Amino acid sequence: MLKGHYTDKEAIPQLKYGSTNTTMRWLLSREDGAGNFAMRVVRIEKDGFVGMHRHPYEHEIFILSGIGIAKEATGQEEEINPGDFFFIEPDVEHSFINTGDEPLELICCIPDKGY
Amino acid sequence: MLKGHYTDKEAIPQLKYGSTNTTMRWLLSREDGAGNFAMRVVRIEKDGFVGMHRHPYEHEIFILSGIGIAKEATGQEEEINPGDFFFIEPDVEHSFINTGDEPLELICCIPDKGY
Repeated sequence: MLKGHYTDKEAIPQLKYGSTNTTMRWLLSREDGAGNFAMRVVRIEKDGFVGMHRHPYEHEIFILSGIGIAKEATGQEEEINPGDFFFIEPDVEHSFINTGDEPLELICCIPDKGY
Repeated sequence: MLKGHYTDKEAIPQLKYGSTNTTMRWLLSREDGAGNFAMRVVRIEKDGFVGMHRHPYEHEIFILSGIGIAKEATGQEEEINPGDFFFIEPDVEHSFINTGDEPLELICCIPDKGY
């Protein structure tokens, strides 16, 4: 087995889609022999957000801490609270906004198709 | 998008491999349109464990709360603490033991090959 702590991994600033005050850590991916799907931790600081965007693959998300709003371009909005899970279907335009005073941290898994 | 809270899902007792005081919640799977991989939450109560077992698919694990030990049949043992992640390779015989006074809860993702 392979083991690590999520803070061992570099928190890479996410700048695409106008995202602000957001980092991503890649915990497990094909580099680790995990070729079917990848596990990442996204951290959105106070006043941060992931900008509206879409891609041809799904997200499976679990909220670790913090509060916020998940939005779709369709207008759908959902509150984010710890212990929530989300499925963002492929090609659905979406964004995540931290609306609290603490960091919003979440697990985000994606299939590994070489993205 | 699809949203839920992990406690909305039934905590199904896990009795295989001699497992004790352990439940699993399926958060996302092919029933939700998530056909590439599945996300589950495993909860091992105080004095509980998942018995030694193997299967032809990998685990990608993130520790939500609690402490314990992850063991391989090879003899490898690793401490489990919150924020740890684990990759259990296919066909590796493994078990998880709660060694603390609180429940041990973890995210466990697997590829969806119809298991």
